[in-house]
Amino acid sequence: MDTAADITAMRRAIALAARGLGSTSPNPVVGCVVLDAAGETAGEGFHQRAGGPHAEIHALRAAGDRARGGTAYVTLEPCNHTGRTGPCARALVEAGIARVVYAVGDPNPQATGGADTLRAAGVRAEAGLLADEAEAGNAAWLTSVRLGRPHVTWKYAASLDGRVAAADGTSRWISSAESRADVHRLRAEADAVLVGSGTARADDPQLGVRGIDGAVQPLRVVMDTRATAVHPGARVLDATAPTLVAVAEDAETGHLPDELVLRLPRAADGPGLDPAALLAALHGRGVRSVLLEGGPVLAGAFVAAGLVDKVVGYLAPVLIGAGPAALADAGISTITEALRLDVTETVRIGPDLRVTAVPGPARKEN
Amino acid sequence: MDTAADITAMRRAIALAARGLGSTSPNPVVGCVVLDAAGETAGEGFHQRAGGPHAEIHALRAAGDRARGGTAYVTLEPCNHTGRTGPCARALVEAGIARVVYAVGDPNPQATGGADTLRAAGVRAEAGLLADEAEAGNAAWLTSVRLGRPHVTWKYAASLDGRVAAADGTSRWISSAESRADVHRLRAEADAVLVGSGTARADDPQLGVRGIDGAVQPLRVVMDTRATAVHPGARVLDATAPTLVAVAEDAETGHLPDELVLRLPRAADGPGLDPAALLAALHGRGVRSVLLEGGPVLAGAFVAAGLVDKVVGYLAPVLIGAGPAALADAGISTITEALRLDVTETVRIGPDLRVTAVPGPARKEN
Repeated sequence: MDTAADITAMRRAIALAARGLGSTSPNPVVGCVVLDAAGETAGEGFHQRAGGPHAEIHALRAAGDRARGGTAYVTLEPCNHTGRTGPCARALVEAGIARVVYAVGDPNPQATGGADTLRAAGVRAEAGLLADEAEAGNAAWLTSVRLGRPHVTWKYAASLDGRVAAADGTSRWISSAESRADVHRLRAEADAVLVGSGTARADDPQLGVRGIDGAVQPLRVVMDTRATAVHPGARVLDATAPTLVAVAEDAETGHLPDELVLRLPRAADGPGLDPAALLAALHGRGVRSVLLEGGPVLAGAFVAAGLVDKVVGYLAPVLIGAGPAALADAGISTITEALRLDVTETVRIGPDLRVTAVPGPARKEN
Repeated sequence: MDTAADITAMRRAIALAARGLGSTSPNPVVGCVVLDAAGETAGEGFHQRAGGPHAEIHALRAAGDRARGGTAYVTLEPCNHTGRTGPCARALVEAGIARVVYAVGDPNPQATGGADTLRAAGVRAEAGLLADEAEAGNAAWLTSVRLGRPHVTWKYAASLDGRVAAADGTSRWISSAESRADVHRLRAEADAVLVGSGTARADDPQLGVRGIDGAVQPLRVVMDTRATAVHPGARVLDATAPTLVAVAEDAETGHLPDELVLRLPRAADGPGLDPAALLAALHGRGVRSVLLEGGPVLAGAFVAAGLVDKVVGYLAPVLIGAGPAALADAGISTITEALRLDVTETVRIGPDLRVTAVPGPARKEN
């Protein structure tokens, strides 16, 4: 049975794991807390970057001899394989840990089996404590392992009546400075940031993370089917972060450096590129999470393809009454086909509302 | 100085006042709590309907002799005039009340002066306690007195991307059963419910209050400029509540009972009727609050005319990507002209979000 101390330790491990968001791909975020035999905190750690030590190793190092006879709380089943680092299950056994409590089983076929290794060595291994919270914290990585593509968060900022710009195209600023700062946090947590040609052409966005110390810059991706939106000198081509320009196989790209060009097939039923092909290409490059920043046409293509895993809407208390809507054609023609979501969080960001939602059970039943 | 007991009593008076919402027009809602000389609650009351006793009279009757030397807490300055009932200031003096604490001064020139009457009789009269809360509870009536027109609340139900229907016009149901039930509460609190010809034609709405015991049915108003949307047999013409069909001066209305027809001038700059003229006509009939239920075109005309005092949006966690937006042309062409609001409340209603907002200071400065 899980005690209050177990829950406290696991919750702390989940909080530690979150510190790695945006810098561990293609690895998951993982947090670990080691309590000594008397139940006192002996060590903590989290996975900071791919190639670096896993969370358990950080925590065991901090605990030293106090790990002997203690309990390790880990947000993900300790790995069983030797990659750039040794297997954590082995390290926990060697440190003399008596009990391992982990939240979520490792779905990665290359790494799973850690619990078996622990049990074979006489360590008690228990799964499932705060599994939902730990899953939520690792949603991007778990999605990518299960579906073989990156997790996609669609972010938009709109007026209360759903507009992302006025009739004349002006949109600076619908949302508040606080909301715009919050978007930089989303970017910092993502492996890649994606916009379409309309946004690239209208806004010339830089797409980098600003204002967050130590943030890892995400890969910047522009879906520019005909290679007409990203020009030499575009801000997205600056040297602050890597960039890819996804274009159609037959696009003329003489104006772009070859190493930035990603050629993809067109969508079967639309003028743009195939969103699934883009995600597959990004997954192949180690991208586990994508922040889809717009605009409405690109978002519509991803919704239509069933490739949006989370929606983060910044709703500004503003009425406009004309201008483009946040979401363009998503292949939905009647109300029963609408994409139903569950709201998971609502929070005030300055004067705005931030609404977070995920596709609901109704959709999964389809 | 106001004590904790003062604040508790006034908050109770504000809660009592709210019970009258929707049934007191053209009078305000008012609540009253009488504490005896020892500070114990001796009587409570609220204004229930025009022509009936005022809140103070109910509370004084309940208190009886215990009012002598006590304190009366009233949400609005006690009236000084003899209408269908006698002046409350006089009644408080005669009951021996030693101190009157009221939240908001009476802006009605016919009724004001109650505080002076009290002071002339040796009663301590203090204004301003919880004035903001009391004002919010009486927003409709105060607006109508100050502006000489009814208070207008625009209610809409939309998807997260701001659509009120899908591309084929279907909209049942974007919002949840819980949200739809909540709208009946809004109707019950309003003196009139207003829709345009588009909504009347598409939905044939009944517009009555259902599911709320003892609710006073609001006046149902359809803005049907050319008198082509409301046909004999329309649900809005049933016998459950009064109805007005607002039409242009030259509209052919042979199919409608004369007593339901309200002829109005057309708007100077649009195809519809002048919203201000409609509000003036309704004010003349004792309507102090209007719930504007749609659709997008009518809402756009009211926003353009600066005649929306409160916005209540039911946002359903649904994505549609096509179909009409919640708000149509409101005379706003660029982002700096957008109508800025302040969010006053956000609450979950079933799976939906209800967002309440009022035009912000930025607008008042214009």
